[in-house]
Amino acid sequence: MVVRVAIIGASGYTGGELLRLLALHPYVEVTVATSREYVGKPIHIAHFNLRGYYRNLRFSKLDLDTIINSADVVFTSLPHGVSLQYVPKLLESGLRVVDLSADFRLKNPESYRIWYDFEHPYPDLLAKAVYGLPELHREELRGAMLIASPGCNATASILALAPLVKAGIIDTSRIVVDVKVGSSERGSNPTIGSHHPEREGAMRPYEADGHRHAAEVIQELSLLAGRIVNVSLVPHSVGSVRGVLASAHSWLLREVSDIDLFRVYSELYSKEPFIRIIRGVPPGYPDPKYVIGSNYADVGFALELRAGRVTGFAAIDNLVKGAAGQAIQAFNIAMNFEETLGLKLPPLKPA
Amino acid sequence: MVVRVAIIGASGYTGGELLRLLALHPYVEVTVATSREYVGKPIHIAHFNLRGYYRNLRFSKLDLDTIINSADVVFTSLPHGVSLQYVPKLLESGLRVVDLSADFRLKNPESYRIWYDFEHPYPDLLAKAVYGLPELHREELRGAMLIASPGCNATASILALAPLVKAGIIDTSRIVVDVKVGSSERGSNPTIGSHHPEREGAMRPYEADGHRHAAEVIQELSLLAGRIVNVSLVPHSVGSVRGVLASAHSWLLREVSDIDLFRVYSELYSKEPFIRIIRGVPPGYPDPKYVIGSNYADVGFALELRAGRVTGFAAIDNLVKGAAGQAIQAFNIAMNFEETLGLKLPPLKPA
Amino acid sequence: MVVRVAIIGASGYTGGELLRLLALHPYVEVTVATSREYVGKPIHIAHFNLRGYYRNLRFSKLDLDTIINSADVVFTSLPHGVSLQYVPKLLESGLRVVDLSADFRLKNPESYRIWYDFEHPYPDLLAKAVYGLPELHREELRGAMLIASPGCNATASILALAPLVKAGIIDTSRIVVDVKVGSSERGSNPTIGSHHPEREGAMRPYEADGHRHAAEVIQELSLLAGRIVNVSLVPHSVGSVRGVLASAHSWLLREVSDIDLFRVYSELYSKEPFIRIIRGVPPGYPDPKYVIGSNYADVGFALELRAGRVTGFAAIDNLVKGAAGQAIQAFNIAMNFEETLGLKLPPLKPA
Amino acid sequence: MVVRVAIIGASGYTGGELLRLLALHPYVEVTVATSREYVGKPIHIAHFNLRGYYRNLRFSKLDLDTIINSADVVFTSLPHGVSLQYVPKLLESGLRVVDLSADFRLKNPESYRIWYDFEHPYPDLLAKAVYGLPELHREELRGAMLIASPGCNATASILALAPLVKAGIIDTSRIVVDVKVGSSERGSNPTIGSHHPEREGAMRPYEADGHRHAAEVIQELSLLAGRIVNVSLVPHSVGSVRGVLASAHSWLLREVSDIDLFRVYSELYSKEPFIRIIRGVPPGYPDPKYVIGSNYADVGFALELRAGRVTGFAAIDNLVKGAAGQAIQAFNIAMNFEETLGLKLPPLKPA
Repeated sequence: MVVRVAIIGASGYTGGELLRLLALHPYVEVTVATSREYVGKPIHIAHFNLRGYYRNLRFSKLDLDTIINSADVVFTSLPHGVSLQYVPKLLESGLRVVDLSADFRLKNPESYRIWYDFEHPYPDLLAKAVYGLPELHREELRGAMLIASPGCNATASILALAPLVKAGIIDTSRIVVDVKVGSSERGSNPTIGSHHPEREGAMRPYEADGHRHAAEVIQELSLLAGRIVNVSLVPHSVGSVRGVLASAHSWLLREVSDIDLFRVYSELYSKEPFIRIIRGVPPGYPDPKYVIGSNYADVGFALELRAGRVTGFAAIDNLVKGAAGQAIQAFNIAMNFEETLGLKLPPLKPA
Repeated sequence: MVVRVAIIGASGYTGGELLRLLALHPYVEVTVATSREYVGKPIHIAHFNLRGYYRNLRFSKLDLDTIINSADVVFTSLPHGVSLQYVPKLLESGLRVVDLSADFRLKNPESYRIWYDFEHPYPDLLAKAVYGLPELHREELRGAMLIASPGCNATASILALAPLVKAGIIDTSRIVVDVKVGSSERGSNPTIGSHHPEREGAMRPYEADGHRHAAEVIQELSLLAGRIVNVSLVPHSVGSVRGVLASAHSWLLREVSDIDLFRVYSELYSKEPFIRIIRGVPPGYPDPKYVIGSNYADVGFALELRAGRVTGFAAIDNLVKGAAGQAIQAFNIAMNFEETLGLKLPPLKPA
Repeated sequence: MVVRVAIIGASGYTGGELLRLLALHPYVEVTVATSREYVGKPIHIAHFNLRGYYRNLRFSKLDLDTIINSADVVFTSLPHGVSLQYVPKLLESGLRVVDLSADFRLKNPESYRIWYDFEHPYPDLLAKAVYGLPELHREELRGAMLIASPGCNATASILALAPLVKAGIIDTSRIVVDVKVGSSERGSNPTIGSHHPEREGAMRPYEADGHRHAAEVIQELSLLAGRIVNVSLVPHSVGSVRGVLASAHSWLLREVSDIDLFRVYSELYSKEPFIRIIRGVPPGYPDPKYVIGSNYADVGFALELRAGRVTGFAAIDNLVKGAAGQAIQAFNIAMNFEETLGLKLPPLKPA
Repeated sequence: MVVRVAIIGASGYTGGELLRLLALHPYVEVTVATSREYVGKPIHIAHFNLRGYYRNLRFSKLDLDTIINSADVVFTSLPHGVSLQYVPKLLESGLRVVDLSADFRLKNPESYRIWYDFEHPYPDLLAKAVYGLPELHREELRGAMLIASPGCNATASILALAPLVKAGIIDTSRIVVDVKVGSSERGSNPTIGSHHPEREGAMRPYEADGHRHAAEVIQELSLLAGRIVNVSLVPHSVGSVRGVLASAHSWLLREVSDIDLFRVYSELYSKEPFIRIIRGVPPGYPDPKYVIGSNYADVGFALELRAGRVTGFAAIDNLVKGAAGQAIQAFNIAMNFEETLGLKLPPLKPA
């Protein structure tokens, strides 16, 4: 049994990571990989690492009819606002879609007006889409035809906070997530901010007056809490290539112990195949360095009772659990495959 | 006119940085540089960069009598708890002391019990010591005989928050400073955490359940506020070599505008020789990358009204404004020198 | 069918990499992992990345009897001079040994006196050992009981030069290999040279007056050439974590074209499962960055006819093709397994 | 006494570095700084590090008449082939020119045809220009009106080899310089090769089949040797931001000792204000890491008698001794200033 997969937007970092991981998936054949820049060229011209893989595949231009004829499932890795031009027709033609843009992540059309500054043309699809975070939506994902794969900063932020919010032990009116991200998060196009001499060794806040991924985090945590949760995201560029660390700072509603917190995290995550709780073992707290290349999210927490503060941490590889890996995990669930297929690679250490 | 300076603990990174900067100070001659490891060896054996400087100086072992005879001012760069074994005698002998450890930073002896777990033997010296942050204590520093030079994380945290606290516009019961630090902060001794394969590309929280530098921050901000300010510090190791970025997250007591905040920062800092307010110019927010090698602190802020959050930022070179440079700035003030002597070097870019 | 594998010296970087790769090997069960430092502790205490793998395995102290009873094959990852204390007994007991030290790499006992400064006690085993570079010794490796796995600098140097030497087109009396290596090459123990502030951004020659791995390179290339080949290795530490690039500079005996050189490389390598020739495609020349995490060696060359110079390049991940991966490749051949088992993971990009 | 200086092409990295260093020069006032991109904007908009310096200077567009009226000396930091459009008129108008491009470095017009593929229009100026390497051309630089400042790779290569070539102890028909360079060498414009995710951790050869800077190296060393010296340059991009290390590999004509070599280097360099010979002291060999921010060139050598090989090393900061600093050093000599004016800053450590 083989599922035919098309990747729209296959020459960027997320596209490359889908290709890297799907190369090891026993039930997937990638039949289409679109790219505007590399039409007709072998995969390894964009993804040097993949020389030796996908010998029979070349980049093609985006043509929906071709895709509809040659694929069962489509992963769309396109800029925000572009995905929604293609997704409806793919769905109508009976294809399953895993969309890695933000175009179908928010349930409330109004949120698109607020955070993305446009009128969403398909409110019905927003209702139908499943937010592709298996840890919170596994059941809805089974058989889902439209999966909205979460943003990387949002994934780390939600995973760091979900147990605290669900347990009702923090003040949900004041949460700030200080996010640190590697340079691959901004994609494969060079900019002055990503120019090596300017980026290496940086510690630089960006979009610190309001980051769009907060919309997803607020939506998901509010669902968990049963009321509006006020979350700010403050992202920072650091000199790593891969990785997101979310340090989610919050204030306790009541005194808790370290063991209480461990229980709270364990309840939600102990059966999760890709969550590892870091407590009392080296390196002390989650560090994305130790999940690089893998679909793991390492989570943990720190309690400072004197100050009434608890910080939840989550560390992911932005291109794997923060993008391609999580999309494949959701795809596996939707297809009724074993959830970890193609995702069993251990992280690198040292990375 | 020449001031004879001794450096106790001169072979570590802070000692090296004192030597680098004092080499350019027109009124200073370094007459003693102590080191346990390098006794009798030329300076450049420890500080390769300084080959060609200090040709007539060699490391010597710590001998208080020698120092008293050959120096007017002593910079002590020793581990916490060690400085206080030497400082009293140096003061008694009439020498001026700039201490870079934590031993004289806290006014309240009780704080040493809480944060450093020992009984401070010289409460009288605590009363006499001046906290060496020129931006808050310039007048007290003039003529001061004992200067307690601030910690690097504390310096960045205080500079980021002081304007907000002074203006009374944030809730002082809930402030969390998310600090990012380069690897040189932990000094020149190799450890597993500083081993290059483990540190490069890291984003790793440490002492996240309570960092000692918070004691200084609380002390200084409480003085400014006129009441106890509750601050948590959550430091993170990142892959840079130099630099501290403090992202100080707080909540507004009342609605303010971006211009209001700019005024608040300008009021406190516009005449400061080493503070630069970053607002509306590239790179957008303070980044330690653009102060490397210099005594500058770049400060800025971000306002997210929707969430009621304001974040103050401060970026410093941990070894300069966070250690040696700030100590020399305070020394200049104490000596009635021009405050910027020896500290006029622009930062490197790219660094 | 399962092969029981013991790893002696399992807590270092090479040990960790063996564990990472063997976790994906369909026919291997790791039954013993020795470590002096971590006796009794779970694998993930040393190898944080492997949390979730090897749940039933703990580090044990080195005990040959235990190993003999519970393993069929032993990978020894020990310092030079230590392996040879254990290997003979393991062989006598009928176990197959893949030794990752230098102890059995050189055929001529005299070479140990010259390069390693000791009298080798087992000249018979030197005769019996197979140098574990599949590209040159595949046939001898089939069924081999003692495999001497090559050094990482040697692997890159030999792979860069073998086609040129075999084709007889370069002057074999004057070859210099300028090697660049990442920080993981020196292992997991912190030293001043590996201290992050000192290593990050470094470009630092070491052992530039004679590097021991040259002995292996000379041995292997002389075999190929049928006469003594004079090779110098000049290694340089750079700021990467993983990776070795060998730039092997040599002089032409006769004029050749770029196409001639491509043929020379293709003849030797076109059927190799882990060699990729980089010519006329991005990124232009081999760069270890694009083999990270994988067993690939990317090779290439550059011709400057004006100067009569040809440079062969080879890029590997020092911990994979330079250590653990190559050892497993040789093990697969020795066991008559498919050569690529457990080694099919594509490299990361970006890494 | 103040010299009025104009900088043409002041918004790039070399322009920024000229501004950083000239800010500390006691006899220089920068009156013009041209830039196409930043016309009318303050200096710190391009050079964030320089906020607080040059408060009265703004970028202007390139206008020769303005420059002629307001400057005595011009530093031109322009792409190759562009400088020569402006330099002749500036010289005619009596201004002194320090040109940082390659346009006037080669004496033989024919060399421009070979290496730069154009017909040089001003052979007379080539004859008049002085190659601005003080270590070899100090006397000619005094009073020089046109200084051709050397390339960074060429500077390091020449400094590494000059003593060996001058002493006549190496075979000058076969020399290969393996050069490692940081990312700032390619300037401030982002490209895919300088994109942080692709550049960080790289070890990547470029222009390995013939690098143009070889022309300068051959010219200068041939002058020293009194006959044609055959040198190849093979540059490699590594993950540092600043720094060039030249490892110049050559073969001995006769047996020499380590002390002989030390004498050879000392004879040429012992009185040089910016050359430091590294021998028998940490870090063992030159490493650009320990000259960062300064005008020093650290040089050294390694001898492998067994192989008949000697390698000369030189480590510089590509933007200082490899560009702006060296240009100022030559300017100081031309002006009869003390040679080290504005260049006394020690390197950073750690950098």
